[in-house]
Amino acid sequence: MRNLQRFASALCGSVPGAGGSALPRLAAPVGVARSLSTLPNGLPSSVTIYEVGPRDGLQNEKKVIPADVKVAFIDLLSGAGFKAIEATSFVSPKWVPQLGDAAEVVARMRKAPGVEYPVLTPNMKGLAGALAAGCREVAVFAAASEAFSRKNINCSVRDSLKRFEEVVVAARKEGVKVRGYVSCAVGCPIQGAVEPAAAADVGAALHHMGCYEVSMADTIGVGTPASMERMLGATLAAGVPAARLAVHCHDTYGMAVANIIAAMRMGVAVVDASVAGLGGCPYARGATGNVATEDVMYMLDGYGISHGLDWGRVLDASEYISAALGRPNGSRAAKALLARRADAAEAAAEAKAKEPKAAQAA
Amino acid sequence: MRNLQRFASALCGSVPGAGGSALPRLAAPVGVARSLSTLPNGLPSSVTIYEVGPRDGLQNEKKVIPADVKVAFIDLLSGAGFKAIEATSFVSPKWVPQLGDAAEVVARMRKAPGVEYPVLTPNMKGLAGALAAGCREVAVFAAASEAFSRKNINCSVRDSLKRFEEVVVAARKEGVKVRGYVSCAVGCPIQGAVEPAAAADVGAALHHMGCYEVSMADTIGVGTPASMERMLGATLAAGVPAARLAVHCHDTYGMAVANIIAAMRMGVAVVDASVAGLGGCPYARGATGNVATEDVMYMLDGYGISHGLDWGRVLDASEYISAALGRPNGSRAAKALLARRADAAEAAAEAKAKEPKAAQAA
Repeated sequence: MRNLQRFASALCGSVPGAGGSALPRLAAPVGVARSLSTLPNGLPSSVTIYEVGPRDGLQNEKKVIPADVKVAFIDLLSGAGFKAIEATSFVSPKWVPQLGDAAEVVARMRKAPGVEYPVLTPNMKGLAGALAAGCREVAVFAAASEAFSRKNINCSVRDSLKRFEEVVVAARKEGVKVRGYVSCAVGCPIQGAVEPAAAADVGAALHHMGCYEVSMADTIGVGTPASMERMLGATLAAGVPAARLAVHCHDTYGMAVANIIAAMRMGVAVVDASVAGLGGCPYARGATGNVATEDVMYMLDGYGISHGLDWGRVLDASEYISAALGRPNGSRAAKALLARRADAAEAAAEAKAKEPKAAQAA
Repeated sequence: MRNLQRFASALCGSVPGAGGSALPRLAAPVGVARSLSTLPNGLPSSVTIYEVGPRDGLQNEKKVIPADVKVAFIDLLSGAGFKAIEATSFVSPKWVPQLGDAAEVVARMRKAPGVEYPVLTPNMKGLAGALAAGCREVAVFAAASEAFSRKNINCSVRDSLKRFEEVVVAARKEGVKVRGYVSCAVGCPIQGAVEPAAAADVGAALHHMGCYEVSMADTIGVGTPASMERMLGATLAAGVPAARLAVHCHDTYGMAVANIIAAMRMGVAVVDASVAGLGGCPYARGATGNVATEDVMYMLDGYGISHGLDWGRVLDASEYISAALGRPNGSRAAKALLARRADAAEAAAEAKAKEPKAAQAA
């Protein structure tokens, strides 16, 4: 469980950005393609968990969380072995007041060597803020759903891609790596089901405009292994290699772990997750958070797939953020393991109390 | 979603028991083997959900639930299309006071045509009670873990099988069908991991002593798809055909849906589940309940695998029992769908309120 194989370093290779290009479709995205070594059962031998808790998890909290808590949480995560931690979002505080302290968080968090701290930059203003704060990895988020794109950012999917391309090109000119997200990749809170081809097209567009990785995101958690397979199949067919793909699953219907396995069977080896299953989509009533990092770790351990994370420290981070938010831990695996840890601590305390006084004094 | 294909009737075939036998290993278990038709992806085209909520779910509740509630719950379930509902357990009320009203529940529940209502009979006394109550399907529960067997029923696994065989033989003499459970099939709260061969041996013993179906049960929910595959692989290799196997997964670590898919990939087409994810194991702190029936249904719908259940009525049962127990619904899918249903009802009420008074009066 404590195999600290640092697979993420292969993902986020040290090859710098190839520089900007005025061409909308760049043939060679930034970064080194991961080598996908597999187990005898065909699953990847290593999986990178891309931790999104500080950004995707905390942005949906009703109350505003102090920057102190965010910084402490991020530092606990880097201490636990995560190699990619999405730290915050440079978005207008008018829209997401929860992340209005983005620059402060970035300034104060410990920059652990070998760890990347991407931030969300939905537009040029966000990118400017991120660059000013010294960020070297950013992410953009395009919807696969026409209805959602129009409602959320008031423009068509096609027009949104033009906007994001501007951000991608500008970021790469600065040698900054860009990750792309495809939101509503299998379903949309407004239009319902999303065609696999629609998600694939957006994924391919992000890939070709130079995103080093594209995360296909079931942001409202309506996907099943079957719909994930169809969507990923279309995305691979559209020319995005598995080594450039990640999946991002919310657990609204309890399918997230199964959906991730379906993705791994198709060669995907990067999985977005939130410690303690933080998060949720403000647009979907009844929607729960991201798949819990701990649940993914437990599944990976079962297969013997390395993830490079320290269980004890991940649980520390999970316990910390749940207590700070005053909400029950959303990870089933964490709840079970923390209960075990409490049992063990209790038993140790009892054993100590039973020791003869003399031995305790000695 | 409302395809009412009644696959369960094929499972619980109408061939009566072949009669008792003094031999410990009967070559031909009772019942007709299910034909396992498959989808192009190799998964079964139909899956039977064997509903265990009234027994496995309610036996672990701290407070005693009135028989009225149990009967109403069972009747809601049969109305929703379940073809196998484990109704209760004929066990000493000294051990499980929650189910001390077994005979009353069996007497009062509606016996819907085509529905089987198995009851748990851990010993000859339990069987006598079940037979006196008119039950025609019973179930026995043997542990794969030596440590658990000794702690729970104070005898070795081998001796427990002798006891259960007595029950199986006596039941079959009466033409009563017997289902076998293998508890702790992948893990045990005392000894930890359980060898696949140990679970397989117990499963094969139950199969050979005449159980029409053997449910391999991860009663504490520690399994992963990987450990389920190993355990089921060993069980198939030990001579229990897939058509005679079921799986029973608790969701302690959030793996249950993924574990069930792993089982389906190996040909298993009967899945135990509890509406609202009821249940839990009193021996494992932090243990959550059974996999939620609704989560399984949602996953099956995704694949286009028929289950024959009526979503609306399953949700009614889920809402009813959660309210009666005064606890949050343990099914993620049910929570999301009930929230949607509430949204729709609210919208309809608002629309009605906005209608012109004249139209309302008309």
